[in-house]
Amino acid sequence: MRLSSAFQPMLKEVPAEAQIASHRLMLRAGLIRQTSSGIYAWLPAGLRVLRNIERIVREEQNAIGAQEVLMPTLQSADLWRRSGRYDAYGPEMLRIKDRHEREMLYGPTNEEMITDLFGQAIKSYRELPQVLYHIQWKFRDELRPRFGVMRGREFLMKDAYSFDVTYEGAVASYRRMMLAYLRTFQRLGVRAVPMVADTGPIGGNLSHEFLVLAPTGESGVFYDAALEEQDWLAQDVDIADTASLEAFFNRVTGSYAATDEMHDEKAWSEVPEDRRREGRGIEVGHIFYFGTKYTEAMGISVSGSDSAPLFPQMGSYGIGVSRLVGAIIEASHDEAGLIWPDEVAPYRAAILNLKVGDAASDAICERLYAAAPDAFLYDDRSDRAGVKFNDADLLGHPWQMIVGPRGAKEGMVELKRRATGERLELSVEDALSRVLGG
Amino acid sequence: MRLSSAFQPMLKEVPAEAQIASHRLMLRAGLIRQTSSGIYAWLPAGLRVLRNIERIVREEQNAIGAQEVLMPTLQSADLWRRSGRYDAYGPEMLRIKDRHEREMLYGPTNEEMITDLFGQAIKSYRELPQVLYHIQWKFRDELRPRFGVMRGREFLMKDAYSFDVTYEGAVASYRRMMLAYLRTFQRLGVRAVPMVADTGPIGGNLSHEFLVLAPTGESGVFYDAALEEQDWLAQDVDIADTASLEAFFNRVTGSYAATDEMHDEKAWSEVPEDRRREGRGIEVGHIFYFGTKYTEAMGISVSGSDSAPLFPQMGSYGIGVSRLVGAIIEASHDEAGLIWPDEVAPYRAAILNLKVGDAASDAICERLYAAAPDAFLYDDRSDRAGVKFNDADLLGHPWQMIVGPRGAKEGMVELKRRATGERLELSVEDALSRVLGG
Repeated sequence: MRLSSAFQPMLKEVPAEAQIASHRLMLRAGLIRQTSSGIYAWLPAGLRVLRNIERIVREEQNAIGAQEVLMPTLQSADLWRRSGRYDAYGPEMLRIKDRHEREMLYGPTNEEMITDLFGQAIKSYRELPQVLYHIQWKFRDELRPRFGVMRGREFLMKDAYSFDVTYEGAVASYRRMMLAYLRTFQRLGVRAVPMVADTGPIGGNLSHEFLVLAPTGESGVFYDAALEEQDWLAQDVDIADTASLEAFFNRVTGSYAATDEMHDEKAWSEVPEDRRREGRGIEVGHIFYFGTKYTEAMGISVSGSDSAPLFPQMGSYGIGVSRLVGAIIEASHDEAGLIWPDEVAPYRAAILNLKVGDAASDAICERLYAAAPDAFLYDDRSDRAGVKFNDADLLGHPWQMIVGPRGAKEGMVELKRRATGERLELSVEDALSRVLGG
Repeated sequence: MRLSSAFQPMLKEVPAEAQIASHRLMLRAGLIRQTSSGIYAWLPAGLRVLRNIERIVREEQNAIGAQEVLMPTLQSADLWRRSGRYDAYGPEMLRIKDRHEREMLYGPTNEEMITDLFGQAIKSYRELPQVLYHIQWKFRDELRPRFGVMRGREFLMKDAYSFDVTYEGAVASYRRMMLAYLRTFQRLGVRAVPMVADTGPIGGNLSHEFLVLAPTGESGVFYDAALEEQDWLAQDVDIADTASLEAFFNRVTGSYAATDEMHDEKAWSEVPEDRRREGRGIEVGHIFYFGTKYTEAMGISVSGSDSAPLFPQMGSYGIGVSRLVGAIIEASHDEAGLIWPDEVAPYRAAILNLKVGDAASDAICERLYAAAPDAFLYDDRSDRAGVKFNDADLLGHPWQMIVGPRGAKEGMVELKRRATGERLELSVEDALSRVLGG
């Protein structure tokens, strides 16, 4: 994309209500604009980030055999009456009446609907397990929406639901999902540590929140450094094998990790001092086993091996996709602006033409740009170099390819890595292979 | 995907309210399920079709320089009061009150919101033209939703909006979009003929509907056969050149085409008799120039070349993405089931293992499947061959790779083209290269 024609309105000043870095930077860099309280439009660069996150989430869901569906945003109240949640849910649920005065709602989550769809489709235990997910906009009518996309009202979420015959099957589904989550967050370029969460009346240890470590996080976190040293992508886990899944699960849960709510001083004191990490975290995911809560309440059964009706064991698994954009920024920015991890960046590199109109500079920039127009944001504006440096740092693409008249005459490009500030003088070919190759 | 574990519930009997072929077939094949009146969940195979359509629409929008954004589903009533449409819009608009009793609505379209976003971002005529689009769920509270996704209440639409300095600029934007639409529909495997539509008080000839030809269409259509003989993808139109765009536009509009509403018997009589085509059509797109209607009403201007405020000239351009799934099926099916065009099919081929458990058959099927697991639906169920033949025809993938014990022993696959019924005996390699290569 050429910046001169891109719809990327950058702001010098941001509204006072933007209290945290991610909110300020998303507005300044032209990623989002608020359209109503807690509701945002995603401008092209912001949408590219959102789509990159979606893609990675989707690939890792598919890798564990989850199947993607798409449920609608609006649901009928009657469906929620079947589980008893319609009356129980608070004012965060947006309740709607259609032209025929039928009661509806904007879905804040989809347990009821997926259980109903499952029940219509699946009749025998032989067809289990099933794991279904979708990535869809949800609405929660927060009393005081704030922090931009971190606590918005209309937000994008990936929610998955598993259906198993037995408790053991549900545990395996849960563990596969934990693996998918750890791999997803690692690919997104953030550290998200799984922490035991409250399981309510269900009990057991099958509820984990995933928190991205960032100073502005809403929860205090305590964890063993072992958890941030693991390379989940490199670990060879056989997801079809129960023992392999168990070994993996034990590796994760064997290290201490808890939010302040669940913190246990005694267990914490047993972690070697040099491995204790304290900080703050932003919740970006939650996985939860809840057994037959919905299948029983809604009367959804399949025929078991003895032909008797059997209520499938369920779990649900959420990732806050739009929230993650904010969380990644909270974890990765500096005074000058955004610092995108490679896999989520809107573009892989910015091309900075320091002197538009200089024949050699223009020629080099056009050569660079032509190599991958969809991967580069080409700053072809006739602004001063200083403006371009500042904007490139603000927009935070992983690489900057800086072209000035002096270097251009020699066919050289200055390559800057945004995260480290490291700079290299390279030929056009070497710069391209460095940026596009890795 | 292996059919034995796919979430693809096929139905023998369909609800009586499914009156048209696309609705019946989408239910029978397990593409969608209704969750409330006029609201549908998309099951995995249906979602794959929807995503394929989205991808093609997106690629052709990007190809003419349109930039993708994503606006939220909910909008504030105040925004619509600025254009005067809040009170004018009928009961199809779903009106909502949030917990603070603020008036909101589920967007049926986005002229107001995009004009507002444009006005916040673009300050000078130098930054024009701009063409912005999004692909987002909309809601229209139809009095009597019917025909499945053809007239649903929650539906997926691509809507684009152009902003130009002058009328001539707006005409060029309009013509580029017409080209993008013709190419989009051709790639989708359907013929969509552009027909002059009513421009209301604006006048002129800059309003066209695109109708897919199908016997169940809601409108009668009359058109010159020349319009279905054109290969829009092969035509060399320079979208940066006004004269080239004009020549293209004249080629399109030089041939007669009208719906019954706009039909002109006199002009029709001038079309050579052997070139007259009459039939019915389903509206899947609409492009419309409306000048400064919204920019003036909402007070959105940019500074012109003389520094005086200038109200940009706008057009809007819609494609019914979810409706297209139904329209494509109406245009392409037979008694036995769906017949997917290559580019939109959920899978490129079905693999039919006629005797699961036969070592040679299993081995050949696994070899085929391993070649492209994401492109094939492998029927590995232990059902009879007859069931598999029927289901494969119902699901309508472009190719069927049929493997029985006799052929398998010789390493041969029977390849069937769904659309024509044509059959070929081929080796595994030849079958794969035929199916994956073209």
